[in-house]
Amino acid sequence: MRRTRLTPEREAELYEAVLALLREVGYDALTMDAVAARTRASKATLYRQWKGKPELVASALRHNKPMSLADIDTGTVRGDLQSMVCSADQDRMDKDAALMRGLQHAIHRDPDLKQALREVLIQPEMDALDAMFRRAVDRGEIEAGNPALPFVGHMVLGGFIARPLIEDRTADSEYLSRYIDAVILPALGL
Amino acid sequence: MRRTRLTPEREAELYEAVLALLREVGYDALTMDAVAARTRASKATLYRQWKGKPELVASALRHNKPMSLADIDTGTVRGDLQSMVCSADQDRMDKDAALMRGLQHAIHRDPDLKQALREVLIQPEMDALDAMFRRAVDRGEIEAGNPALPFVGHMVLGGFIARPLIEDRTADSEYLSRYIDAVILPALGL
Repeated sequence: MRRTRLTPEREAELYEAVLALLREVGYDALTMDAVAARTRASKATLYRQWKGKPELVASALRHNKPMSLADIDTGTVRGDLQSMVCSADQDRMDKDAALMRGLQHAIHRDPDLKQALREVLIQPEMDALDAMFRRAVDRGEIEAGNPALPFVGHMVLGGFIARPLIEDRTADSEYLSRYIDAVILPALGL
Repeated sequence: MRRTRLTPEREAELYEAVLALLREVGYDALTMDAVAARTRASKATLYRQWKGKPELVASALRHNKPMSLADIDTGTVRGDLQSMVCSADQDRMDKDAALMRGLQHAIHRDPDLKQALREVLIQPEMDALDAMFRRAVDRGEIEAGNPALPFVGHMVLGGFIARPLIEDRTADSEYLSRYIDAVILPALGL
């Protein structure tokens, strides 16, 4: 009897293994052999299910949906931003940061991987931020022409990525909360 | 006759090759064999001169000194920041960004490499920024207690790194100039 489809549980298990390997060794050093060995799957199974490494990694990233900002709506910009930071799971943020690091070199050479990363890890958060600030404009808290408005995503993501490089510490909620009050809100004139 | 020291020209040539390989394949995939092949040097020469890959890469980074902000002093914060952006060599900035990407995963596992990267690529710029803003405080342009002051480095580096991730475009002078006026100066209350 030959199993033609993986169960959702088995698929999730394979994706978890792929993401763990990504964080550990990075994209270039990740091999289908290593995935097969760690998950006790046959390589034939992997290649039957996914065409190759870029597809398997993209599927694993798609499966690992980031936390959603879309549900946050406190009624003020400060409330929304601070709630985004406080609701964030630190362990999850650290893992996402490790994923980004493991992929950053590879995405500049592999357009499929880059597309998947942008679609899965970055664009959904940027869309949710856009919606958050459209509401702020609608309720009159920020003017539509505020010059800092097109850079909200850059400020949030930039503050997140810059800390480990400058201070050699991960961007935790305490730091991000200070960064919001000292940088993002004043830049927006709030 | 056995040559015991490399000439400065030959050393510079080796460092250039190491940096080019770093940008192309990343730290993990960079091998002493590849450096030897590209520079037509013997591996014995490489190992005689440098203990191993981390030392060779650290030396190459140290040799590749980043442009210095230390000489900029226009008399205003806006003038200093805009001049930093306009004086920047775009090709050089792109190359430094490619270097950072190629190293980012490796530095999280290799403390020597991380130390070298921070010492060579990040700390000198942060020190120069600190001096720039100490002068602004001294001449009374900014208050010493301005809450955004501790985050100037995060804003500059963050804006630089965030653009390619969000917009899929490198942070060029035109973008950085807009970012300074829309984000950094307003955040500082200027």
